[in-house]
Amino acid sequence: MKVLISGGCGFIGSHIVDRLLKRSDIELCLVVDNLWTGRKDNLHHINDDRLKIEIRDVETFASDVLFDEIYHLASPASPPWYMAEPRRTIESNLIGALRLLDVLKPGGRFAFTSTSEVYGDPRVSPQPESYVGMVDCTGPRSSYDESKRCTESLLFETLRTKGLDLRVVRLFNVYGPRTRPDDGRAVSNFITQALAGKPLTVFGDGSQTRSWGYIDDIVDGLERYFWLDKIEYPGPLNIGNDREVPVLDVAKYIANLFGGRMIIQHPIPINDPTNRRPDLTLANKILPGWSCSVPYEEGVKRTVEWFREEMKLSKVG
Amino acid sequence: MKVLISGGCGFIGSHIVDRLLKRSDIELCLVVDNLWTGRKDNLHHINDDRLKIEIRDVETFASDVLFDEIYHLASPASPPWYMAEPRRTIESNLIGALRLLDVLKPGGRFAFTSTSEVYGDPRVSPQPESYVGMVDCTGPRSSYDESKRCTESLLFETLRTKGLDLRVVRLFNVYGPRTRPDDGRAVSNFITQALAGKPLTVFGDGSQTRSWGYIDDIVDGLERYFWLDKIEYPGPLNIGNDREVPVLDVAKYIANLFGGRMIIQHPIPINDPTNRRPDLTLANKILPGWSCSVPYEEGVKRTVEWFREEMKLSKVG
Repeated sequence: MKVLISGGCGFIGSHIVDRLLKRSDIELCLVVDNLWTGRKDNLHHINDDRLKIEIRDVETFASDVLFDEIYHLASPASPPWYMAEPRRTIESNLIGALRLLDVLKPGGRFAFTSTSEVYGDPRVSPQPESYVGMVDCTGPRSSYDESKRCTESLLFETLRTKGLDLRVVRLFNVYGPRTRPDDGRAVSNFITQALAGKPLTVFGDGSQTRSWGYIDDIVDGLERYFWLDKIEYPGPLNIGNDREVPVLDVAKYIANLFGGRMIIQHPIPINDPTNRRPDLTLANKILPGWSCSVPYEEGVKRTVEWFREEMKLSKVG
Repeated sequence: MKVLISGGCGFIGSHIVDRLLKRSDIELCLVVDNLWTGRKDNLHHINDDRLKIEIRDVETFASDVLFDEIYHLASPASPPWYMAEPRRTIESNLIGALRLLDVLKPGGRFAFTSTSEVYGDPRVSPQPESYVGMVDCTGPRSSYDESKRCTESLLFETLRTKGLDLRVVRLFNVYGPRTRPDDGRAVSNFITQALAGKPLTVFGDGSQTRSWGYIDDIVDGLERYFWLDKIEYPGPLNIGNDREVPVLDVAKYIANLFGGRMIIQHPIPINDPTNRRPDLTLANKILPGWSCSVPYEEGVKRTVEWFREEMKLSKVG
């Protein structure tokens, strides 16, 4: 089997690569990544001849080789990153998907990591997959939200008109080891701030909630849905932790871990979602027995340890 | 001034070309159209050396010439057409916009015809521009809705990050002369069915409402917003007729015009919007004095006359 993973040097992508390489049926695992937000270091620990890395934009990818399975993860996922380069965000998601569909073997599987951001600022909680969302398509977060939505449309419409072995997940606030220190999202921000001895910055009053999914739990779910289990359902499928926690609680928890750092408030960005929590009814049915077992208190500790090592290494390096 | 209009052989596009050529400051009016739903006949009446037509896909368009004004209208607009080729629909809208941004002169104007379909099946009536919509991004109408939404995002995000002289309109159910006989939307369907002596087909019970805008009224608004008036507002701007009429009423009116044709019901398609009506508060402020003056009873008569002539010609030809 030849598999391709776009964004394989990224936070989630690199964990998927680890899991793929445990499979004995794979002869080629091609990572396509332009290192925009991904980092080669995330795959540095792998010593496996089947892994090939092409440093390039997925939106111009072409190949004579056709792939049995394609995992399309190439996209920035943190607001400061995608808001700085909205055009490129749309191109990596949507044009990336178009280019990758062109190199999928007939009958091959196409998996796409969409996002809970397709729900925008939801008026329904928890959010089931059938909820159509509240996204302002002209707003400053729209390049990410709309490029994910439009890529979902492309894939489900391809399924409807031509047939496609499709797997679409909507991921909810994933965190953990291999997040960039300068990622810009809450958990990693709080940790890097705390490690640097700085105050923790919360946007607004911190009452906005998120459902924090620890990377190992999330990748367990992805692995089962993408290739381990025999599943016919093409998606969309919510994958996340359904314990909803206000951002301020996480900030306080991390501040306390470091003996009491100060927490300061910054103005809340436009269109920042007020709440976010997956309805996991469908996930429980499709992936029986799967659940997020790492509470944020534990996941945060593991992430702190990883960042501590990482920052030591980067000082040495 | 050099201007480019994608989709210039189409129903609305060809009317825009007529108006553009009334301007004396234009030296080149380049139409880019692949004749997917456009027809060369729509520009057949024009005898003007400034008009050039390139028959090609806008999504692969490139040029050394940069344009002062670009009007991006290339897209199918009727469900049977875009539902049959969803990928191409996304490409013409979104990749078309990317290609056209690349040939816009710095400081040039970019105008885009978005759609009331960005509101999906609205829960608010009438729909103001601030309403974020109810679109199922996995549904069978999504290629059109989401490619328009994502193109809006691309343009407003380009405005936010780089600056752009932008004009985005959201059009509501336009009808009139130069609609394709096989267009597939209600008014033209009813008329071609009636002219052919067939029963008129209504989807569902016909209680779903639309706001029918006659082409001349709509193009009056576009002309003012796109180039005549001095306006700073980049959009989105609703352009349409705010008289809301059930589909069945239009069918009955046309059936009666032909001495009483039969009306039969077909099953209603998935995600067919139940209602659609523009909130014109902003349009009245931005374009004072503009309004839709042709009621559907009159517009339909004019359209019947045009179709009658058209079908005579096509029989002769």
